[in-house]
Amino acid sequence: MNAMDPQSATRARIADAAEALFRQIGYQKTSVADIAKACAMSPANVYRFFPSKSAINEAITQRLLNTIGNELEAIAAGKGGAGERLRATAAHLYRRDVELFFAEKRMHDMVGAAMTEHWGVIEGFIARVLAIWEGLLREGMAAGEFRSLDPTGIAMTFKQCLLLWTHPILLADCLGRGQTPEELGTQQQAALDLMLAGIAKN
Amino acid sequence: MNAMDPQSATRARIADAAEALFRQIGYQKTSVADIAKACAMSPANVYRFFPSKSAINEAITQRLLNTIGNELEAIAAGKGGAGERLRATAAHLYRRDVELFFAEKRMHDMVGAAMTEHWGVIEGFIARVLAIWEGLLREGMAAGEFRSLDPTGIAMTFKQCLLLWTHPILLADCLGRGQTPEELGTQQQAALDLMLAGIAKN
Repeated sequence: MNAMDPQSATRARIADAAEALFRQIGYQKTSVADIAKACAMSPANVYRFFPSKSAINEAITQRLLNTIGNELEAIAAGKGGAGERLRATAAHLYRRDVELFFAEKRMHDMVGAAMTEHWGVIEGFIARVLAIWEGLLREGMAAGEFRSLDPTGIAMTFKQCLLLWTHPILLADCLGRGQTPEELGTQQQAALDLMLAGIAKN
Repeated sequence: MNAMDPQSATRARIADAAEALFRQIGYQKTSVADIAKACAMSPANVYRFFPSKSAINEAITQRLLNTIGNELEAIAAGKGGAGERLRATAAHLYRRDVELFFAEKRMHDMVGAAMTEHWGVIEGFIARVLAIWEGLLREGMAAGEFRSLDPTGIAMTFKQCLLLWTHPILLADCLGRGQTPEELGTQQQAALDLMLAGIAKN
């Protein structure tokens, strides 16, 4: 937030106020007028920075996913074997999802709206996760920890097989049917056990 | 359909007519009056056999899933290694899903309604698939093809990791974003490669 130009600083201030309102009263129920009021500015002034509520949501989603992407990259750059770090990034992604959708139920419709209206932002994040996993797979192959396989293909398979623990609709469905976040987390670890055994060099 | 009591025969006839209408004009647009007309009977008579359109859908879903379950059991009881048969059952389940949701788009809302209104029927089918996979895993472990692992847990992990290729909402999403059924089928095989490698005895 430091050394930001005035335009970006105002955009960030609007996004902050909007995000707080989305968390408090929900995305659908928040109007641009509410956001403007929280920023002590006119709705017309908000519209100078964002053409719509949806555009504010896009900016919030973008920065949230940037933060999570940075956290995943930090884990990937940490210590330990490539498999351990791959496992830790997947577990972190799952934990962040659970926090977002369940600890903060109000955020759910905001994310739902982002998934339908701003797929490009979500897609960019998915590409970043895939790149992190591909990098870890290459590292593990180079170190002799994993077999020689196509890292791009395997990263995609990991992403597809771990969908239950990352896709908000599936997560909401499982938790709605009475599974606890802890049970699901344990099941994700079992899936990772299986997949990491599938690429391990014997 | 042979040697059926008159009550069951009439229920089957109503279900047949309803299924044909659901395929032709869609579940939402079909009324009990349409179904009665197609059976040359009064709506009141249809209601003697089924309390609602939703109950007719439940019966159709039940017999469709029974048929698919029987097909999967036949594949599981066939020749070849346990891994080959496990792979073949998963591929068959995926193909049947694709047929149901895409070759016959009209069936989509029927299945959607079944998933929200008759979860018990779906859950029974999932339990049957899990039992088939658990049986194959036990066989493969006994034959020394797979490592000694918890077959119940691994069957659940397979089910969870293969969700993308069985869950109608996810399939619809992928195909809606331009992936072809063939690409998705190839990706399912890659996922099965990884998971079977993960349980293989070296």
